[in-house]
Amino acid sequence: MLIGYSETETFLRNCKDAVILTHQSPDGDCIGAGFGLKDILAELGIRSRVICCDEFPSPRYDFMTKAGAGEEFEPQTVIAVDIADEKLMGSYAEIYGGKVQLCIDHHESNKNYAEKTLLREKATATCEIIYDLAKYMGVNITRHCAMCLYTGIATDSGCFRYSCTTPRAHEIAAELKRSYDIDFAKINRYMFEVKSLGRIKLEAKVSDLLEEHLGGKLAVIAVTQDMMKELGIAPDELEGFAPLTIQLENTEVGILMREREPNVFKCSFRSADAVNVSAICQTIGGGGHAKAAGCTVEGALEDVKAELIEAVRKALDK
Amino acid sequence: MLIGYSETETFLRNCKDAVILTHQSPDGDCIGAGFGLKDILAELGIRSRVICCDEFPSPRYDFMTKAGAGEEFEPQTVIAVDIADEKLMGSYAEIYGGKVQLCIDHHESNKNYAEKTLLREKATATCEIIYDLAKYMGVNITRHCAMCLYTGIATDSGCFRYSCTTPRAHEIAAELKRSYDIDFAKINRYMFEVKSLGRIKLEAKVSDLLEEHLGGKLAVIAVTQDMMKELGIAPDELEGFAPLTIQLENTEVGILMREREPNVFKCSFRSADAVNVSAICQTIGGGGHAKAAGCTVEGALEDVKAELIEAVRKALDK
Repeated sequence: MLIGYSETETFLRNCKDAVILTHQSPDGDCIGAGFGLKDILAELGIRSRVICCDEFPSPRYDFMTKAGAGEEFEPQTVIAVDIADEKLMGSYAEIYGGKVQLCIDHHESNKNYAEKTLLREKATATCEIIYDLAKYMGVNITRHCAMCLYTGIATDSGCFRYSCTTPRAHEIAAELKRSYDIDFAKINRYMFEVKSLGRIKLEAKVSDLLEEHLGGKLAVIAVTQDMMKELGIAPDELEGFAPLTIQLENTEVGILMREREPNVFKCSFRSADAVNVSAICQTIGGGGHAKAAGCTVEGALEDVKAELIEAVRKALDK
Repeated sequence: MLIGYSETETFLRNCKDAVILTHQSPDGDCIGAGFGLKDILAELGIRSRVICCDEFPSPRYDFMTKAGAGEEFEPQTVIAVDIADEKLMGSYAEIYGGKVQLCIDHHESNKNYAEKTLLREKATATCEIIYDLAKYMGVNITRHCAMCLYTGIATDSGCFRYSCTTPRAHEIAAELKRSYDIDFAKINRYMFEVKSLGRIKLEAKVSDLLEEHLGGKLAVIAVTQDMMKELGIAPDELEGFAPLTIQLENTEVGILMREREPNVFKCSFRSADAVNVSAICQTIGGGGHAKAAGCTVEGALEDVKAELIEAVRKALDK
């Protein structure tokens, strides 16, 4: 059931011992939303724990997670943030599937799987919703919470670059910058700039891998496990690579294929402008946003690639 | 003489037939400020022309410049935007040196060379000042003007990434997004993402060129004219490369050296965090901002590099 801020406030003020679920392959928005909501619940005197089936990448997100995910307790409340589909809980779907009482999310592809869902598809990030929720509730936003919420908004908007960046996202950034002594540029540097030497070299290699298909309208970069091993790169270091696929002027759709397990490819789609890649991904079992979406496809590299190219060709033909 | 908004308004409302000077190697901020101010003057019924000693890079900035720089006339007013030092007029310094009546700028290194200067060193971009000036004056901001001013703010802030990004910059972005039907993401895409295949390959090559000095605290990338020729790259395509020099976690200062003419190196400095690179550049005849500054040094590649390393070493020793 879809609910608004008022009912969400009632739910949160009356819940206790909550686990806050974040999605697999956690990113800046779900980590920021999880730890930001944990801070808000703490202000209300409610204990909570942020959980994920995967480890939170370190040291990248340490400034949000190092305060601790929360003590151990028997959960009485299950909250999901930034999770559009129970499948995205990964291995935790077995434990928490069908048990989420409150979901806070901004994905238009949200499956409405929770008992109650606060969904704002237009929001830049789940962190934007949580900021507005905290303001609505009149709860104090701590400095740590402010860092978390800024990080989610910055990462999901590509640091205010993408079309999903709302005026509200800018207003929140302005409010946070006026109210807190936080080194925002340092956060941005860690989210968008700092790389290992290995990653810099991988990017150089990856740029050579850029393939043009469909007359240049589709660009694909495929990174196999062998390549990652050869260069000593962890899969989460590839997180910011997807935009590299839409660098060429005529590219309409870009796909980054990452081999997570042998013959299992996580495919991140980006739209340069008008094409809705969420719609394309939905035809192959995925979802996301109009300009940034994804899916996971099993098979040999060339077979998976052929399937993706065909799906994009159909969409472009429309 | 430093002046405020009120006196600037009086000057602008009473000027006629103005040339608006932008600096050499024009970038998003000086082009946005020049063409934005031209739009504002047009609203006041005052004709103006935007000029620069170099050509405005095309097609990158066409959306701002294609409306035309303005008709030919005998100038009666000389205005400079985003020019901290008359030397930065390039070859136009011979014509306009000592003749600038009004300068609007945000560089702390501004030499106060104009008759009147509206200087706000804290502003993210000259375009931020011009937006506030237009609001102060109550002048209508056209859609084209809005595109220009957004572009300047976005480019000088690294799309809201750098520490120079003020709360005001975010507020202006929010106001522009609420008021105008502009494809801001497309502007950002052209400013920060779109590259030629040649540039992508050059970046790959350049990444291999990254040199660490001073125990990794300084990173240098030097691009010679031979390299540019080999890859068919125009010098202005290297504009966004400087941040590549501060990608490694321990780097405090990064320098991009571009050989503009044989043995003449344009050196762009970036600070990752605390080091004031404007201060360093001022010791070798340059200037700029604390986190992004530059200078031009003549000499053989290795000699120039040694000079820069020494200047950075001294600054780090302090």
